[in-house]
Amino acid sequence: MKRIAILGPGLLGGSIAVKLRQLGGCRVSVWARRAEAVEEVIAAECADTATSDLAEAVGEAGLVVLCVPVGAMGELARAILPSIQPGTIVTDVGSVKGRVLAELGAIFRGRGRFVGSHPMAGSEQTGLKAARADLFDRATCIVTPDENTDAAALGEVTAFWQQLGCRVVALRAAEHDVCVALVSHLPHLVAATLINTVAAKNSHAFEVVGPGFRDSSRVASGPPAMWTEILTENSRAVDEAINALIAKLTDFRQMIAGSNDGRELREFLAAAKATRDRIFPKINNG
Amino acid sequence: MKRIAILGPGLLGGSIAVKLRQLGGCRVSVWARRAEAVEEVIAAECADTATSDLAEAVGEAGLVVLCVPVGAMGELARAILPSIQPGTIVTDVGSVKGRVLAELGAIFRGRGRFVGSHPMAGSEQTGLKAARADLFDRATCIVTPDENTDAAALGEVTAFWQQLGCRVVALRAAEHDVCVALVSHLPHLVAATLINTVAAKNSHAFEVVGPGFRDSSRVASGPPAMWTEILTENSRAVDEAINALIAKLTDFRQMIAGSNDGRELREFLAAAKATRDRIFPKINNG
Repeated sequence: MKRIAILGPGLLGGSIAVKLRQLGGCRVSVWARRAEAVEEVIAAECADTATSDLAEAVGEAGLVVLCVPVGAMGELARAILPSIQPGTIVTDVGSVKGRVLAELGAIFRGRGRFVGSHPMAGSEQTGLKAARADLFDRATCIVTPDENTDAAALGEVTAFWQQLGCRVVALRAAEHDVCVALVSHLPHLVAATLINTVAAKNSHAFEVVGPGFRDSSRVASGPPAMWTEILTENSRAVDEAINALIAKLTDFRQMIAGSNDGRELREFLAAAKATRDRIFPKINNG
Repeated sequence: MKRIAILGPGLLGGSIAVKLRQLGGCRVSVWARRAEAVEEVIAAECADTATSDLAEAVGEAGLVVLCVPVGAMGELARAILPSIQPGTIVTDVGSVKGRVLAELGAIFRGRGRFVGSHPMAGSEQTGLKAARADLFDRATCIVTPDENTDAAALGEVTAFWQQLGCRVVALRAAEHDVCVALVSHLPHLVAATLINTVAAKNSHAFEVVGPGFRDSSRVASGPPAMWTEILTENSRAVDEAINALIAKLTDFRQMIAGSNDGRELREFLAAAKATRDRIFPKINNG
């Protein structure tokens, strides 16, 4: 029976465990740093074993999934290195790939077979208590192979995410970071900035918010420490994305001040609507 | 029995009709400009009478609700003036209040009793086909009385929106326009700008969008012509809002470039999260 180790039972790690338990056919060990977190995993009955002993968690695993924040990946990778089998496949769930991938790739060059992953699932909720089996249903998971990636390991990791319900896309790490800066990191920081702008300009306005503002700002309820790490880690691509947004907002100011009967403005809004309706067909809008 | 006339059976007008029909206790007439729209109302069975004859629709009404786009309000108001009773209460659903309110207020100064309203309900869907009885459930409706507003009429209009399920807030027209520029118009144009920025920078990024981008951009699927009118009509307050957002985004660029171990960035994100979690307690985040 396949043995899978999940390191870090947060929202992502916990949801993987819950889903694997539902699917059956594999043996799941979960590692958590804190004893209370181990107890929570045991109470949630989502793993065959739960331990704070790294060597015990990964020793017999064919696949190890690192589910800790980006900033903790390197240390954890180095810590498990002596305990994994030479052919063990290791993957992660980090939201930024460039630097982390280079670091993890180097660590597992001589032992283990590393493949970077980024399942684009999550919510503004956090922790094992928010874990759910359907978190990955139809979510996109980006895998980021490079010239050192073992082809068989890439295949196994791809199949793993597909089994959890993901659509898998392969991108180079650098391309990954540019794409997520645009569609994930930029919306996050814009949501936070939107809220702080309203708070600074006229906090009475919050008394009349509707569902539009609620949805537009939802992601800003995500964990600040985690997002600080992500935005800092991907600062170059994020800065370029903000810059591009500011340029378009500046164009927008010209358009609403313009005297061409709103034509430019209408075309701008129509282009955005057409793009969005193509990306998210009506059925997924609910 | 109370007689209510709804002029314009779009998403808002249609939803009012559907809800009134569900509540019972009043007689509803609906006016639509086009014969096909009248047929749709009849087919939807959400009114006692449906007609394209304005005088017929409003002649016996105690309350008339103008549910047409902001740009069409003035013309419609002038058109019904000869047909309403002297004491008929007239309200509207316009998203911008300043100029329109002054215009409508003047039109109804001698005949009818006008009270401005803005039910903050809606969706990116449009038209009678999207109408639903629960559209106003727990939505905020802003009423905008001024020194000429008849107190009894204000009370009736307030009770009307409450009966439909709204929480009613009274604001001066100018304050209304500043508030909605911040919590409704700014999120809308930001969503559109976000989409157009990604499209311009790297449209491959759309292949890896997740639920965060979907929700952040949802409002951008709204009708471009309607939003062009709203943004143009409220251009002064909107321009100030954009300007404030750009200033905060510029601060943000400094923060991610900063070398203070992410403290400022974390505080910025934590402030946004705290504000949002206060406005939208977890139970409404679904």
